[in-house]
Amino acid sequence: MLNKLPSSISALLDARANGHSLPAGLYVREDVFEADIDVFFHNHWICVGLDCDVPEPGDATVIDIGKTSLILLRDDDGEIRVLHNVCRHRGSRLLDPGKTIVSKLVCPYHTWTYELTGELRYAPHMGKDFDKECRSLKPVTFKSIGGLIYVCLSDNPPEDIAILEQAMTERLAPYDIRNAKVAFQTDVIEDGNWKLTMENNRECYHCSANHPELCVSFVDLDFGFDPETLSPEDREQAEEHFRLYEERTNAWESDGFPSAAVEQLADCATNFRTQRLIIAGAGESQTHDATAASSKLLGHMTRKDLGDTHLWGHNSWNHFMGDHAVVATVIPLSAGKTLVRTKWLVHKDAVEGVDYDLDKLTDVWVATTDQDADLVARSHAGTLDPAYQPGPYSRFSETNLDKFASWYIDRMRAHGY
Amino acid sequence: MLNKLPSSISALLDARANGHSLPAGLYVREDVFEADIDVFFHNHWICVGLDCDVPEPGDATVIDIGKTSLILLRDDDGEIRVLHNVCRHRGSRLLDPGKTIVSKLVCPYHTWTYELTGELRYAPHMGKDFDKECRSLKPVTFKSIGGLIYVCLSDNPPEDIAILEQAMTERLAPYDIRNAKVAFQTDVIEDGNWKLTMENNRECYHCSANHPELCVSFVDLDFGFDPETLSPEDREQAEEHFRLYEERTNAWESDGFPSAAVEQLADCATNFRTQRLIIAGAGESQTHDATAASSKLLGHMTRKDLGDTHLWGHNSWNHFMGDHAVVATVIPLSAGKTLVRTKWLVHKDAVEGVDYDLDKLTDVWVATTDQDADLVARSHAGTLDPAYQPGPYSRFSETNLDKFASWYIDRMRAHGY
Amino acid sequence: MLNKLPSSISALLDARANGHSLPAGLYVREDVFEADIDVFFHNHWICVGLDCDVPEPGDATVIDIGKTSLILLRDDDGEIRVLHNVCRHRGSRLLDPGKTIVSKLVCPYHTWTYELTGELRYAPHMGKDFDKECRSLKPVTFKSIGGLIYVCLSDNPPEDIAILEQAMTERLAPYDIRNAKVAFQTDVIEDGNWKLTMENNRECYHCSANHPELCVSFVDLDFGFDPETLSPEDREQAEEHFRLYEERTNAWESDGFPSAAVEQLADCATNFRTQRLIIAGAGESQTHDATAASSKLLGHMTRKDLGDTHLWGHNSWNHFMGDHAVVATVIPLSAGKTLVRTKWLVHKDAVEGVDYDLDKLTDVWVATTDQDADLVARSHAGTLDPAYQPGPYSRFSETNLDKFASWYIDRMRAHGY
Repeated sequence: MLNKLPSSISALLDARANGHSLPAGLYVREDVFEADIDVFFHNHWICVGLDCDVPEPGDATVIDIGKTSLILLRDDDGEIRVLHNVCRHRGSRLLDPGKTIVSKLVCPYHTWTYELTGELRYAPHMGKDFDKECRSLKPVTFKSIGGLIYVCLSDNPPEDIAILEQAMTERLAPYDIRNAKVAFQTDVIEDGNWKLTMENNRECYHCSANHPELCVSFVDLDFGFDPETLSPEDREQAEEHFRLYEERTNAWESDGFPSAAVEQLADCATNFRTQRLIIAGAGESQTHDATAASSKLLGHMTRKDLGDTHLWGHNSWNHFMGDHAVVATVIPLSAGKTLVRTKWLVHKDAVEGVDYDLDKLTDVWVATTDQDADLVARSHAGTLDPAYQPGPYSRFSETNLDKFASWYIDRMRAHGY
Repeated sequence: MLNKLPSSISALLDARANGHSLPAGLYVREDVFEADIDVFFHNHWICVGLDCDVPEPGDATVIDIGKTSLILLRDDDGEIRVLHNVCRHRGSRLLDPGKTIVSKLVCPYHTWTYELTGELRYAPHMGKDFDKECRSLKPVTFKSIGGLIYVCLSDNPPEDIAILEQAMTERLAPYDIRNAKVAFQTDVIEDGNWKLTMENNRECYHCSANHPELCVSFVDLDFGFDPETLSPEDREQAEEHFRLYEERTNAWESDGFPSAAVEQLADCATNFRTQRLIIAGAGESQTHDATAASSKLLGHMTRKDLGDTHLWGHNSWNHFMGDHAVVATVIPLSAGKTLVRTKWLVHKDAVEGVDYDLDKLTDVWVATTDQDADLVARSHAGTLDPAYQPGPYSRFSETNLDKFASWYIDRMRAHGY
Repeated sequence: MLNKLPSSISALLDARANGHSLPAGLYVREDVFEADIDVFFHNHWICVGLDCDVPEPGDATVIDIGKTSLILLRDDDGEIRVLHNVCRHRGSRLLDPGKTIVSKLVCPYHTWTYELTGELRYAPHMGKDFDKECRSLKPVTFKSIGGLIYVCLSDNPPEDIAILEQAMTERLAPYDIRNAKVAFQTDVIEDGNWKLTMENNRECYHCSANHPELCVSFVDLDFGFDPETLSPEDREQAEEHFRLYEERTNAWESDGFPSAAVEQLADCATNFRTQRLIIAGAGESQTHDATAASSKLLGHMTRKDLGDTHLWGHNSWNHFMGDHAVVATVIPLSAGKTLVRTKWLVHKDAVEGVDYDLDKLTDVWVATTDQDADLVARSHAGTLDPAYQPGPYSRFSETNLDKFASWYIDRMRAHGY
């Protein structure tokens, strides 16, 4: 018969074997999903948007993280604010999903009216003695790191975001993401657990068979390979590639562009990795022919040969190139549904059809994202199958998944599970 | 970490603070929804339909209340019957949702055949000695009060329905709702908890910002206002309005039309309120210009100036005017879905296009119902948000919500929660 | 108040009264559904497909049983194989739902490549010392009985399948189902519990009122009748029918065609019944006029007058006739959703439009299946109703339902519930 009582989450964490994917329950159970939301999306820093989502004072956009709804806005002084989208009267949503322009935040229910700072200005019918002070919209702890908005929904945000902040502030400066323009955005809902989405992003073992468009510019060798199974020609090519890394990294760094890998993937709250990667072929950009898609470069960039500054977080991935950037955030919707929101950024003055062709800009990652959604869905479906058992990660090209799974277990433990 | 065990329902009830909206769990949790169905929809009287839903012998209509399906019908003797829509053989539904005309109730599965009284008449294949007596369709306890059908699904229906019955039998008599005609009906499914639907109906604080059509004829002052924040002109107008109430109520009552408020909103099982309200402007009816929509008045009415007899229950609201009535019943579908069924009633002999214009008859409440559905949905979404915390009710215009919330807590307690 | 703790499954099993349908919870609760999947679909033999679903080497079809996905294929040696559709690497689905042709089974994720036997042949990036031996696709225990594929997902398949195997191997031989052709297939999702689907199939009490097309060729008397309620003419007709059975059964058996009923419906794991039934009217086939739909008879059949060899299992029903066969398998999807997959089989060389007319072949059971889906849905809806209570089975025409319900309780008990 069935075990009438399902395993505790703690027992599932215990059952994880090093070097192997997670026990099924950690991917598929709704109680684990609730715990994940609590631990990884409420008690860790997550990347949720960009300064340039709200370029002008009064610009506002709503970001939903599970049942939590946030308003990201730029106030009258040009400052970024992140506020809970919940009226302090009877809880009504103030703004609908999507973007809008506001001068005040007026609740449509009973017209309680807040300043863009969140301060309650007007609350009709509440009496002259009503204390408006304690009824401001609840603010959310956030940081803009090089133009990327990280929030933490808990009262005790992990302090080790400082390492990420230090590394990325310098690396992102030349791209001036804070003043970029969002040229395009897609929302793809993957039929899989968010951890499968992240695992899929952290290996390129699947790239050659699944991402023909991406493989023009992206070098899967960078994310690991099995030297013993390479042909002599391929091995020579791999060795040449890593010689080139030393050369390029030295050259880039001596030109003032930090490039070497910085990562914090274990024994930490804030999980990230960054490195300046070589772009293959024409070497400029992640496009169908590896040449730049935008003739107006990002920010203060003057060169197209500075590779791809990649940045991972536990709910995001990013590629910053000379001409454009691709930034993706991941929001779990349920144990088996995950939103992947991808934005393509160009210089704020770049004009579509003049400085860049939108198809060329977006083709590669639109295709890659769709391909990944299919892979995550078939992976999730298999994980649901009683015949699934955790499989072995490749010790060459899936070590980062092993680290991610170990970090996941550690963080769950750190939060009492 | 999360509390691994969610609060008990009892703890949620304890957590409610007077003067404030309910703790989130009471609006959004499915276990609370199940408890609500048990307490408020199975163990209290609920309004589910009208005598005039089934005007002729053989007319039948199916009313679903959660998983419970009822057949409201008029039998061969012209009597109203309410029966469970469950065959006593293997449980098949006898009738499909909606209206029909029947001479017997024949189960489509194995043709068990019942009289319109519910008596089992024919049960093939069951043998000559089969005792049909104990296999009648199960009857439902009901009362027709002035033509409104109240049912109670429990074996111990609350006795204090008597107060409602006494008040409304007299007040509804002139409208002769029992013999009215249902001119129009809408079913709107609101994306919110039924208690938010009821709270929304019990205040008019939100009217001026949301219901331009209704505000032509409806006076939001009647449901409370903050005297200190009125302008001198508005205060004078308010004082004039309440002087007018005294005058009108006296005049109506001396003409034999009970008008003063009668309410039972605390320390009771059966929650209701009735009062004859002043209609604004032209003063006749809740239409776009406050004039009557039907030239043939309801029942025995001879005057259009008798205002709006409003009646609240815990799952219904009603407005009875000279020319027509609007009656609405509320059926919860899940913690976050609620059916609002609205009917527009006219004199049984009133002819569409001759005596009344259907658009004029229905415009105001069709618009109001849609507007309310939007408000309830945004209220429910906010209540789901971890950032929600119960907010303060206005002590001027939300006292009836405070009373409703307190009554809700009391009734849950009375049923052992 | 509600019982805060719902009854245990064991208490529901205890509550079942002989001669009556099951307590509601056994039909509608999701925890019972999970238990049913465990007991009846993982620990008993279930019929899931046909040899002739995969007629040629390399043919493969995916069969989903709840969250379990199976690959039924024919390997390079022409042998049938049933394998779990779960890659041994990270669990990805290998094949999509539906039919396909394969030379190897290649996981689309990281190109792990398996032989059609399930053996892992190629696993890139895993290192030279990686042990592929222990990473074959997991095989599934199965039997092909006369061309019908039965699987058992547990390690201890019930041994009493032998009785079914012995009976059906001989009976099905002349039809050569192993080499038939699937001429048509439908998937109907019924809005009801799988046990209601099976109950519906095990009685013909509902046939006369619901299946006009089927009743041309199918004799509902075969599944029981109440002799006392028949008219003298009908009783004479019934007696004549059963006299005819004796005559036909003797004649068929003396011609070498086993025909008498064989059944195992109690005190067993493997629940089945078979009998050669008389076809009414023209006597050839279950078509609109009871004449054969295919001029090319099945397998080695040379006669159209050999009736209908019916076969029930606990998740299947089948009718084998001279010209064609109808086989149906039942897969529960949730407590209230059940997949009924029906296939129409003809001789492998029969050509549509030449040897058979597809409409004539399929009309009767397409209509019957739709009618049954409606009945199961209204039965399930009633079972959900709090007013439902288990009803009495007819002791004439529902004895097989009573046996099925008793067998269900016994098997649940045998598995520890």
